[in-house]
Amino acid sequence: MPRPISKDTQLCMSLAGRPGNFGTRFHNFLYEELGLDYLYKAFTTSDLGAAIGGVRALGIRGCALSMPFKEACIGFLDELDLSAAVIESVNTIVNTDGWLRGYNTDYIAVASLLRSHAVPPASSSSFVLRGSGGMAKAVAFALRDAGFRDGVILARNQEKGEALARSCGFRWQGELGNLQPSLLINVTPIGMAGGAEADDLAFPPDVVAAAETVFDVVALPPETPLIRLAGAEGKRVITGAEVIALQAAEQFVLYTGVRPSDEQVRRAAEYASAP
Amino acid sequence: MPRPISKDTQLCMSLAGRPGNFGTRFHNFLYEELGLDYLYKAFTTSDLGAAIGGVRALGIRGCALSMPFKEACIGFLDELDLSAAVIESVNTIVNTDGWLRGYNTDYIAVASLLRSHAVPPASSSSFVLRGSGGMAKAVAFALRDAGFRDGVILARNQEKGEALARSCGFRWQGELGNLQPSLLINVTPIGMAGGAEADDLAFPPDVVAAAETVFDVVALPPETPLIRLAGAEGKRVITGAEVIALQAAEQFVLYTGVRPSDEQVRRAAEYASAP
Repeated sequence: MPRPISKDTQLCMSLAGRPGNFGTRFHNFLYEELGLDYLYKAFTTSDLGAAIGGVRALGIRGCALSMPFKEACIGFLDELDLSAAVIESVNTIVNTDGWLRGYNTDYIAVASLLRSHAVPPASSSSFVLRGSGGMAKAVAFALRDAGFRDGVILARNQEKGEALARSCGFRWQGELGNLQPSLLINVTPIGMAGGAEADDLAFPPDVVAAAETVFDVVALPPETPLIRLAGAEGKRVITGAEVIALQAAEQFVLYTGVRPSDEQVRRAAEYASAP
Repeated sequence: MPRPISKDTQLCMSLAGRPGNFGTRFHNFLYEELGLDYLYKAFTTSDLGAAIGGVRALGIRGCALSMPFKEACIGFLDELDLSAAVIESVNTIVNTDGWLRGYNTDYIAVASLLRSHAVPPASSSSFVLRGSGGMAKAVAFALRDAGFRDGVILARNQEKGEALARSCGFRWQGELGNLQPSLLINVTPIGMAGGAEADDLAFPPDVVAAAETVFDVVALPPETPLIRLAGAEGKRVITGAEVIALQAAEQFVLYTGVRPSDEQVRRAAEYASAP
């Protein structure tokens, strides 16, 4: 029987334009698993300032932020962690006695996955990152801060692509051309379940064949067409499912001070992803 | 197994200077019992305006208010129900799409108990109400609005006692004197468990003996010395435990639109009061 909610139960929450259930299920699963007196609930809002003011005034311990609040929230916080400051984007607020500090656990998770998958660093690797949105920024800066220098931001939108490339010292290209980098990264919706390009590959098969590592940020399905192809060819792969689980686990650590085991994170993410 | 929390789960909450567990346990018990996708949690705050702004911005469905927020909250609301307007005190906020309406379910509960216990009204009854705080005001106005005219507010604090008596058309007295009213009401902490006067009677035994009805607002213990004496003498009694359960039930109806049965309210209150 789960612990009953009491006046001492700590609340954590999320704010999203269109709330999902992943965070609610992931965090509540681990609270239960680890016997922590916490509770997690997703919200939306049409008044971000008042919502964050409420987080502060009600002593809500943590608040995740999704689209379209990741940049807009910054003016309402007291302090940014380096992970959020480098990309000017916050996906996690930690409230310590009314002091709100913003983090970006997408950045933290991507940086951690580049290390744990032992992606060859900087000097020996070139990469192409396809995409130019908020998540592309988190990934690009994680690459830069891992020492990568020889990289291309591939984006149809020249303005956004160039701006992102410039901000982290990479090059922008509108087309892949004849590049055959050792690291391929997809940060577009290509391959996403239910999307218009669900069956498409973000990179052509011959480019995949020439790469060493393929990283797809799309989390649903856990095996995108790109990941399936790369896996079949024996490439090193990093999946979006890993990113989403690890970024949530980093939030969990920030909120509770408790680090779940890899096995617990795996089971929580599996539970949270179930239909 | 209880319903898992999802993005669609509605949150209700309370704000109190010193949060207790009664509301959290009462409401969550009934959500579970009735299969409603709601969740209740107690909070405190040092910034009432921001906390209520958060209630509005986060779409929190309902918020109970206790000391010291019942009057201070009024300026942050959009509208007062008559129950709150007559006594200028709010213990319940209902949030309908960002529109905050304040109610006073203490007043509603007391008015309802006067009816359901068939306390003889107005013309045939005199009363003495001992106390002059916020709850005394709710009771005094419920008496006035039930038609009582011949009543005395008994309070050591002359200023507060006179002000309350004047506001609802009763008389103030600092001492009981030789009054022997048919209705006795205690709205002081006399008889409250753990208090300095836990073993005392709010009215002398001979005055209790001469009364028809004894109403004690003290909820803990459910049988105060005053209620025990009155019960032993066969008087009609109304207890504080009834008030606290009914006011919470009225909140429940306002938040959910569902009215629990008397039996469900009784069990919820019993569960919520357990140590």
